Amino acid sequence: MLRLERVRRTARSVKGFRTSGLDVGLRAHFGKQPAPDFALIAADGPCTAAGVFTTNQVKAAPVIFDAAQLSANFDHMRAVLINTATANACTGEEGLRNAEQSAAWTAQALGCAADEVLVMSTGVIGVQLPMTVIEAGIPVAVEALRPDGWKDAARAIMTTDTQPKLANIETDGISITGIAKGAGMIAPSMATMLSVIATDAAISAELLQRALSEAVERSFNCIVVDGDMSTNDTVLVLASGASGIEIGEAEYERFTGCLAAVCISLAQGIVKDAEGATRFITLQIVGARTAQEAKQIGNTIAVSPLVKTAFYGGDANWGRIMMAAGRAGVPLDQTKLSLWFDDLQLVADGTALAYDEARANAIAAQPEVCVRLDLGLGSQEATIWTCDLSHDYVDINGHYRT
Amino acid sequence: MLRLERVRRTARSVKGFRTSGLDVGLRAHFGKQPAPDFALIAADGPCTAAGVFTTNQVKAAPVIFDAAQLSANFDHMRAVLINTATANACTGEEGLRNAEQSAAWTAQALGCAADEVLVMSTGVIGVQLPMTVIEAGIPVAVEALRPDGWKDAARAIMTTDTQPKLANIETDGISITGIAKGAGMIAPSMATMLSVIATDAAISAELLQRALSEAVERSFNCIVVDGDMSTNDTVLVLASGASGIEIGEAEYERFTGCLAAVCISLAQGIVKDAEGATRFITLQIVGARTAQEAKQIGNTIAVSPLVKTAFYGGDANWGRIMMAAGRAGVPLDQTKLSLWFDDLQLVADGTALAYDEARANAIAAQPEVCVRLDLGLGSQEATIWTCDLSHDYVDINGHYRT
Repeated sequence: MLRLERVRRTARSVKGFRTSGLDVGLRAHFGKQPAPDFALIAADGPCTAAGVFTTNQVKAAPVIFDAAQLSANFDHMRAVLINTATANACTGEEGLRNAEQSAAWTAQALGCAADEVLVMSTGVIGVQLPMTVIEAGIPVAVEALRPDGWKDAARAIMTTDTQPKLANIETDGISITGIAKGAGMIAPSMATMLSVIATDAAISAELLQRALSEAVERSFNCIVVDGDMSTNDTVLVLASGASGIEIGEAEYERFTGCLAAVCISLAQGIVKDAEGATRFITLQIVGARTAQEAKQIGNTIAVSPLVKTAFYGGDANWGRIMMAAGRAGVPLDQTKLSLWFDDLQLVADGTALAYDEARANAIAAQPEVCVRLDLGLGSQEATIWTCDLSHDYVDINGHYRT
Repeated sequence: MLRLERVRRTARSVKGFRTSGLDVGLRAHFGKQPAPDFALIAADGPCTAAGVFTTNQVKAAPVIFDAAQLSANFDHMRAVLINTATANACTGEEGLRNAEQSAAWTAQALGCAADEVLVMSTGVIGVQLPMTVIEAGIPVAVEALRPDGWKDAARAIMTTDTQPKLANIETDGISITGIAKGAGMIAPSMATMLSVIATDAAISAELLQRALSEAVERSFNCIVVDGDMSTNDTVLVLASGASGIEIGEAEYERFTGCLAAVCISLAQGIVKDAEGATRFITLQIVGARTAQEAKQIGNTIAVSPLVKTAFYGGDANWGRIMMAAGRAGVPLDQTKLSLWFDDLQLVADGTALAYDEARANAIAAQPEVCVRLDLGLGSQEATIWTCDLSHDYVDINGHYRT
């Protein structure tokens, strides 16, 4: 069902879509080093669309705007405009008006209706959109649209990312391509980043929303960089139907598997490119009473600064994993806990084994580490992908705005 | 009620107690640089006693042992033995037997009963106590006991601490002296550290437990270094009654105020000496519906790596505080949020003000910063004390075991 092996980490065009990504001077406007800072994903005709948004109580203007646009017009969407440099969060009424105006200008330039455009923003909180730059940039972005513009778009939405994140799958006559940005402020409760996914499948908006919610739960909601959840998190998917392949209830599971595979690839790409990260850590929590409890424990281990810094140091300080599991708010029987680093067992029945310390440290210092914690309480499990906490994370986030 | 101004950050002897702290070779046993590593607090006669323990599901052997000792013998306690170098956590049945044996040897050396001794451990998880070193060390620690030994004891329980933590208050004819250790693995839910407090007041064990629980809630439970909660957290208080001053219901509030003042002084000392910390941050969350919601938001801001690294960089990146408040799991109205750094207002009605950026950054770069967030929802509030996240924190915790 999950076709991870078929996912390419590259861009492929999707029938019915053109994209662009370029420098329109947003970064320069705020005194930052110029770089591509503006992206547009446009469909040739109306698309069904679905979205999943941050659960943060402080929501950026584009999140509020998109949620309203989508709920009113989920079966007739045409484009997504994305700006970097400012998050358009904590910007009040003016911020909402600016999001609306950006969508209206984009619609005008594309020749569609204003309620057919969605917007996304990423950058510093509390700064209004520079509307003169946005107004001048939109026609340039429309002019630059082309079927193979996905890589440009993926590059143009990067902030502290060092690599563009792209994923594509082609199967059963359909194509799904996604881009994402995100490297920090990544938390386990909702896709803490921006992602736009396009498919040429023909699928109802209702089924598309169901598939996206399920795919996000299995991908973006299983990654943790720092436990912080952005005010702007949004995943959008647009389906053009240009492949002529219809996705109904019979094809739902296969389609969702493919969509989840693209999302997992993008999500893992975010963790691998996490701010300052030097290790990719897979946390498998097994033997839980419920999958929710397993996830809760995995998330708590993943956000623990002490666990993360130990991995950064290549130190197999597994006691911190036991500590973090114990503070997750899930009732445990500590005498039933078992722990492995890769295939090396360190703990049985809650007690340290006489394991090979040098080997444990060697595993902890690998670029990719698998940690397995068996709670011994049941048969449910969860997998969380995370990274270490390094000096570079502190550098990057100590001076983000400057 | 709170007599903070009367708290001295120094040691004063307390009638009925003698203490010692010295190097008995525990650190050397594990190949670490020798330093004082063993402390004993002993009463001349039986004391009433109370304790508050970690809520971590993974509990160290001394936590399990002490909770059982206290509940069986709360009105007849004589001594507390503290070792560093190993936490005696994840050590199974052997670890429990070792805790019990350490208490028995201490009782023998002091000439009291085995059920009158409590033990505390701090250090690496998953390592058994070196019982030959403990056995040899106990008589030496007993021999070294003296009324003015508090500073030695405070020094001997330090691990990554750079300063001993002591506090004393003398008022109404009684004296309360406390020592504490803790610099990392400090979380908001239960005193994530070790502390022993002695008083010469005469107070029933029941009233003492009530006073301690209340004092801890107002002090150690209001500090956050990294959000991680130790397996060993314990606060113990022993009351000798040697002052002859009786504390009953009529004196309860005054006594608890003094006890809380000592605990707050120790707790703030922990945050000020937090691993790698360069700034002491007071988070005042006001205008909440309930104190619990205010505390939850304060704790979430305090653990946010993005907030902590921004303060390390002296960057007034207040958007991250809004983000963290929004992900605390408390329903908010973002249009009612107001934010201040010291007396500089940055946000009103959820929207950024045109504040003086240079002044905001100057405040964020101070050694002590006060952040006030008004939720605009009610009249309840909470104060949390925390610190920044620095390169040194990463250094210290990347290689703690080596």
